[in-house]
Amino acid sequence: MAIVLGENQYGKAENRVVRIDRDGERHRITDLNVSVSLSGDMIDTHLTGANDKVLATDTQKNTVFAFAREGIGEIEDYGLRLARRFVDSQPSIHRARVRIESFPWARLEVGGKPAHHSFARSGEGTRTALITYDGERAEVTGGLTDLTVLNSTDSEFWGFPRDEYTTLPETRDRILATAVSATWRFASADGVDWGKAFDTARASLLDAFGGTYSYSLQQTLYAMGSRVLENVPEIAEVSLSLPNKHHFLTDLSAFGLDNPGEVFHAADRPYGLIEGTVRRDDS
Amino acid sequence: MAIVLGENQYGKAENRVVRIDRDGERHRITDLNVSVSLSGDMIDTHLTGANDKVLATDTQKNTVFAFAREGIGEIEDYGLRLARRFVDSQPSIHRARVRIESFPWARLEVGGKPAHHSFARSGEGTRTALITYDGERAEVTGGLTDLTVLNSTDSEFWGFPRDEYTTLPETRDRILATAVSATWRFASADGVDWGKAFDTARASLLDAFGGTYSYSLQQTLYAMGSRVLENVPEIAEVSLSLPNKHHFLTDLSAFGLDNPGEVFHAADRPYGLIEGTVRRDDS
Amino acid sequence: MAIVLGENQYGKAENRVVRIDRDGERHRITDLNVSVSLSGDMIDTHLTGANDKVLATDTQKNTVFAFAREGIGEIEDYGLRLARRFVDSQPSIHRARVRIESFPWARLEVGGKPAHHSFARSGEGTRTALITYDGERAEVTGGLTDLTVLNSTDSEFWGFPRDEYTTLPETRDRILATAVSATWRFASADGVDWGKAFDTARASLLDAFGGTYSYSLQQTLYAMGSRVLENVPEIAEVSLSLPNKHHFLTDLSAFGLDNPGEVFHAADRPYGLIEGTVRRDDS
Amino acid sequence: MAIVLGENQYGKAENRVVRIDRDGERHRITDLNVSVSLSGDMIDTHLTGANDKVLATDTQKNTVFAFAREGIGEIEDYGLRLARRFVDSQPSIHRARVRIESFPWARLEVGGKPAHHSFARSGEGTRTALITYDGERAEVTGGLTDLTVLNSTDSEFWGFPRDEYTTLPETRDRILATAVSATWRFASADGVDWGKAFDTARASLLDAFGGTYSYSLQQTLYAMGSRVLENVPEIAEVSLSLPNKHHFLTDLSAFGLDNPGEVFHAADRPYGLIEGTVRRDDS
Repeated sequence: MAIVLGENQYGKAENRVVRIDRDGERHRITDLNVSVSLSGDMIDTHLTGANDKVLATDTQKNTVFAFAREGIGEIEDYGLRLARRFVDSQPSIHRARVRIESFPWARLEVGGKPAHHSFARSGEGTRTALITYDGERAEVTGGLTDLTVLNSTDSEFWGFPRDEYTTLPETRDRILATAVSATWRFASADGVDWGKAFDTARASLLDAFGGTYSYSLQQTLYAMGSRVLENVPEIAEVSLSLPNKHHFLTDLSAFGLDNPGEVFHAADRPYGLIEGTVRRDDS
Repeated sequence: MAIVLGENQYGKAENRVVRIDRDGERHRITDLNVSVSLSGDMIDTHLTGANDKVLATDTQKNTVFAFAREGIGEIEDYGLRLARRFVDSQPSIHRARVRIESFPWARLEVGGKPAHHSFARSGEGTRTALITYDGERAEVTGGLTDLTVLNSTDSEFWGFPRDEYTTLPETRDRILATAVSATWRFASADGVDWGKAFDTARASLLDAFGGTYSYSLQQTLYAMGSRVLENVPEIAEVSLSLPNKHHFLTDLSAFGLDNPGEVFHAADRPYGLIEGTVRRDDS
Repeated sequence: MAIVLGENQYGKAENRVVRIDRDGERHRITDLNVSVSLSGDMIDTHLTGANDKVLATDTQKNTVFAFAREGIGEIEDYGLRLARRFVDSQPSIHRARVRIESFPWARLEVGGKPAHHSFARSGEGTRTALITYDGERAEVTGGLTDLTVLNSTDSEFWGFPRDEYTTLPETRDRILATAVSATWRFASADGVDWGKAFDTARASLLDAFGGTYSYSLQQTLYAMGSRVLENVPEIAEVSLSLPNKHHFLTDLSAFGLDNPGEVFHAADRPYGLIEGTVRRDDS
Repeated sequence: MAIVLGENQYGKAENRVVRIDRDGERHRITDLNVSVSLSGDMIDTHLTGANDKVLATDTQKNTVFAFAREGIGEIEDYGLRLARRFVDSQPSIHRARVRIESFPWARLEVGGKPAHHSFARSGEGTRTALITYDGERAEVTGGLTDLTVLNSTDSEFWGFPRDEYTTLPETRDRILATAVSATWRFASADGVDWGKAFDTARASLLDAFGGTYSYSLQQTLYAMGSRVLENVPEIAEVSLSLPNKHHFLTDLSAFGLDNPGEVFHAADRPYGLIEGTVRRDDS
């Protein structure tokens, strides 16, 4: 039976682009990690090493930086410009994927006033985008990661089946904590206010996380995804990956102490991992 | 338009199971990271928080450890036993995925002889397995990760297209280095000598990496995947993800020094990322 | 020549203690990483394995969690209580060091109002404390880490010596970025308002970083340390470790583009590392 | 009270130097991470930003790479050459510290024979060196890190004091595992066969770890340090930092299973941390 090349892609990953926009004295900072991945007619380089159809990953890197010169704007737009460039300028490239992480910075206060050009990395989470373009159609997926949240109560877990390996007691009050990784697929790549969509999606995730009285992390996940869909009409589908960052109530009884939901051990591994997609019903 | 639940799964990730097999004085060590992910009839817990169909992730953890008691053996077999357990014992669970990393250890020499019960973590790379079982069919994917390799010559890169953003010079001699992440899908979950398949696949990857005079990392990738398929008939498909760990020749000319392929800077980011699948042609 | 035991210490590192204070419906969260290190009369266990003077590290862990039951308060006080406990209760322990990291959380907004029991990890940096107690004297060192800051202008670097290996051009405008790691030693462990001292020290560091027109990162370091000493009289000495997180202006000239301080590459390694102590002159 | 500058140093950290030595067809690889730290007359740059005494960290980087051109040899020698260069060529530099990590590579087998120019990163641990030179005296500290070892038996822990917070049961058989971080100070920087000293020290550490029937990790630490001193006369002092990587026997009794030292959970945090120095008695 013959051996053949299947799916393949290649590109330059993790280009760390920082852009300073200077509007007079007042600066703005954009801090990105940009990864490009291209696919197309790549049989030759795999079989013989002939590279005449291989846009060098170094060239991809140069393009990423050169395109930042004209301004970045919303990362979704920047990614679309890059993806179109690669496919439209190279006949051998049939599909481009551009993945962008945007790291948040907050303006420092200096001398009691918001600084013009001083910033600190902030903790709001990393905004992400994945843009795919195949020469005809562009697809945009937004997202959010690196955002750890915790409810110190209003979380229960009980009623689960008990088999021969079940030892977990039921609980009516626990800490529920997770590190949010969310992606959302837009129905169209046109006519979306990307910044507003991100802000609304992020706020929706947090509001639903904090506002849901939870009987399972799955229920919270569904509430989070639904809230995004309710509040951002351009989004067709939300996928969430939520590690259950276990906080175990410490047993202090050996020391003659009770522990009414006060002292916990934050565990590393293992952890629960709850993953799910919430989407509009297009049936 | 209604909002509905799409694809979802949940489980206990990263259970760090260590097993010591004691054959008299001579011990063997198995050091695993086991992640379970289950899916099935999970609508209720997402919509209402009713958990009567949710096998607790804590129970999954207990099962992972309890099943290690009877012996682990090959990780593919251990994963199959676990996956079957979850699906066959719980009507609400329709599919189980068990992902296993197996960390390599070497026997220490003590007093000039191979020790009976002393070991050191070794650098051969992490063996992986992904087992999926849906109640009828089991699929096994093996793999290897955390293995960094380097050819100090016999690598060229030239003949690539030059567009307005291309500045990379052609090279007839460069370092080619990568961190191998490979997975291979077995045609069947039955009748495979898993240990022999892994050893042969690993040796094939290394032999093809080192033995290929390379004109592109894609060519090396294809050679590596093909070699596995040639040498392990039970494997249907090999997927490789190969970061191009760039080693840039240092320009020492400002100091009156040449640099005939001797001094390099090992860069972190960005890096090329070459991904591809090589498979048997079943047309 | 005989072989002898020198300096030694042991303890339980990285106890991840989370405490929820419940003031009615409104909760507060304290999220700590606590490491204990003890030293004293430990000859026996090193030479013969006799452990009668070795307070088990598991016992240390239990003490850390049990002491959290009565309330944590300021981490410096909590560390002092722990350090005194270990030395005062165990004749063989002559010195205790307690190192604490306190991770910042911000209250979420839920339904447009500050939530009672929902939080998100924030980016203000990790507050640290190191408490040392030897049975007579306690010493407290506070600190801050994990805080990345950036000035997008008002930083120059020129006038440095040029030897045969110098190729760096002088610059009159560059990005200055660093990840602040600071520790500050208090003159006394008594009578300090720890929370206020931390807040003032942190604000001083940021204000001095943002407000200093910089000719070298050393100059900025000294300004940061001095500002803390000026504003917090209880602090005797400030030590700073400041990586120079290089942002290199991208050369776009090959593409016919200028780059007037707009597009940068954020490099990983190597990086400058500037370390220094600023202290009160007690001569 | 005046504010003054205390201890300070600066330099270029983490220069990733890779050198290929080509002896005809057969290559050798040296893979280093080199960090330079200089101190001296640095008042001006801290107080006014005047940089005429500040050898730029970029120049330090260039020096590191340029000095690799002539050959690296033993890392201790390379570090000595660098440290001397910085102090001897710059009047303002009074002390140089050069810290080097050397990552291990093994030669691949290709076609059944040791390859000429193909290598894989191996797991023997990272060799380290710290060279300090002050214009008169050079001090060399060697070391080893990133080496995880485990004894699956021959480790006990009992006889420790039991206070009100002690719950740990005594054990007569446990897993003892650690990640070795060792440094050793040489009595002199002259006349040492660095490679032989490293090989002997490393072998001594492993042999003592595996060969010591252990009643405490402290006892094992002392045995490891002593063995190095016994076998390498040029070494004056050995410091070890040994995390106790806890492997907890899993309690399977709830499932009707015993667990005679076979199934363990490898915990992440907290962990014991045992640190100590063993030295020759120069009294």
